[in-house]
Amino acid sequence: MMRDHGGNLDFAQRRFGGRLEDWIDLSTGINHQPYPVPALEPRHWSVLPSQSDVASLHEAARQAYATTASVLAVAGAQAAIGLLPRLAPAGRARILAPTYDEYAPALSDACWQVDEVGDLDALAGADLAVVVNPNNPDGRQHDPARLLALRSRVRRLVVDESFADAVPGVSLSTKAGEAGLLVLRSFGKFYGLAGLRLGFALGNEVDVARLAAMAGPWPVSGAAIEIGRKALLDRDWAAAAIARLEKDSLRLDSLAVGAGWTLIGGTSLFRLYDVGDADAAQARLARAQIWSRVFMEKLHWLRLGLPGDEMEWTRLAGALSAR
Amino acid sequence: MMRDHGGNLDFAQRRFGGRLEDWIDLSTGINHQPYPVPALEPRHWSVLPSQSDVASLHEAARQAYATTASVLAVAGAQAAIGLLPRLAPAGRARILAPTYDEYAPALSDACWQVDEVGDLDALAGADLAVVVNPNNPDGRQHDPARLLALRSRVRRLVVDESFADAVPGVSLSTKAGEAGLLVLRSFGKFYGLAGLRLGFALGNEVDVARLAAMAGPWPVSGAAIEIGRKALLDRDWAAAAIARLEKDSLRLDSLAVGAGWTLIGGTSLFRLYDVGDADAAQARLARAQIWSRVFMEKLHWLRLGLPGDEMEWTRLAGALSAR
Repeated sequence: MMRDHGGNLDFAQRRFGGRLEDWIDLSTGINHQPYPVPALEPRHWSVLPSQSDVASLHEAARQAYATTASVLAVAGAQAAIGLLPRLAPAGRARILAPTYDEYAPALSDACWQVDEVGDLDALAGADLAVVVNPNNPDGRQHDPARLLALRSRVRRLVVDESFADAVPGVSLSTKAGEAGLLVLRSFGKFYGLAGLRLGFALGNEVDVARLAAMAGPWPVSGAAIEIGRKALLDRDWAAAAIARLEKDSLRLDSLAVGAGWTLIGGTSLFRLYDVGDADAAQARLARAQIWSRVFMEKLHWLRLGLPGDEMEWTRLAGALSAR
Repeated sequence: MMRDHGGNLDFAQRRFGGRLEDWIDLSTGINHQPYPVPALEPRHWSVLPSQSDVASLHEAARQAYATTASVLAVAGAQAAIGLLPRLAPAGRARILAPTYDEYAPALSDACWQVDEVGDLDALAGADLAVVVNPNNPDGRQHDPARLLALRSRVRRLVVDESFADAVPGVSLSTKAGEAGLLVLRSFGKFYGLAGLRLGFALGNEVDVARLAAMAGPWPVSGAAIEIGRKALLDRDWAAAAIARLEKDSLRLDSLAVGAGWTLIGGTSLFRLYDVGDADAAQARLARAQIWSRVFMEKLHWLRLGLPGDEMEWTRLAGALSAR
């Protein structure tokens, strides 16, 4: 699978033209109706984040993710992936694939022997097993009980829950403090604030202390601490966003079906469709300045994030009906 | 030297009381008259930083630091220190000491053999030599020509110029693209925006590409990219800040001399004084809710950042004259 993340609007613009600000970027799974950014005080910009500010962000994360585990805020789930290879001496890593394509290179660059496997049982025997749940890009969900059972068969299980906010039932965050389990969470996707660079590692005290030492004293910005804390404590906003995203993902499916596409899977932040010729479908949308995600090794797959406001929905509907 | 960074106001407040917002934090070298934060657009929060946004930040850094070297923006100079140990296979590192106390542990944790040495010549033979110029905490400056000459005697020379903004003449950034040299810059100190988490590595193409791979695709926030870019291009602000800081550092020295202290050295962002009993001097200031920096192995040393507005100057003058 191409190591390409979506979000590469620069590339889309160079190839298909238009002004950057006119493009609708549906190539990622980032919520297009973001949490409203609260006013910041000068100190959030000017001073180094204090230990008590960081502690209150960690406490908000514990509440939002319903866990008593140790927590570390990092500059996006991506930053946690970057630290992972050094959490333990390099050994055998197994990744449930196909999935987010940053794990394999991060681990193999750090001398891990990396195997991508097709089912949960094949993870057994790994020193480090990685499962993305729900999975990106196909939305596949794994039963938390089956994942928990897997722990006795691997040395350390990492569950990437970057897309779990809208489906709290699949999360293992409540168990993240137990030995052999590490849970990664993304903040920016569900809260629609990817530019903030905020994510969390939830785990046992020893693992999290090790990650904290690697991350250094000030891994996240003052703005991320303040905005993240407020957003994570706002459970009303989260509940409304979950309901809205669920409804909107069905709305997207119905547009896609109307265009002759077949739903493969997804979460309520993105949908994966079988579109036949994905390059052609991507180009068709791109001519309307709507960017989508295709996959190097899956030539039928096209992934779409959800439009935000009605203008975006109207433009997408128009692009899909134009032949 | 204690691995303590200043900026630990939480600790000061627990020990000496008062409300956090009433404390004046002079324990760091962060400019108390920050660059005015410009208005941000929603996209700076909501979307992943694009390659073109990052490229324009890098270009602004090249202009500000007068270099054609390859540039990587990272989440503070501290983040670059965290990547450094993996830039090359672990070997012999030598650090010109005493200096900023994050280099030695970062390197030795990653299996480097670390020696702290007392003069430039003793760095010879190192696989990785670290010089902080101007030095923290004593402000010692090294002749750029002597540092350049050192390159032939070490495998790689890292020059940390976190406090060089106010003394552009000492900087080696113009030479940073040459083999064997890597220059680190802090953004947050001189621009007074430490909460933003922004710093830069300037070096040759190979080194910077390696650091970029380690840092991952989105190491800095959208806000840091936008604010950093604007600030770095604002050479008028920088010139005025340099002049003001120079004047204010002399004003601080004269208060210190009046209190019976002796100047050891410093930059125009912090001053280091011989105060006799540093713990007692720190406690005296702390009772007036002014926080300073002391050093575990230098019991006479007290480091002070510069007050910002007249209220801060008045309170510091009052605290220093009270006996």
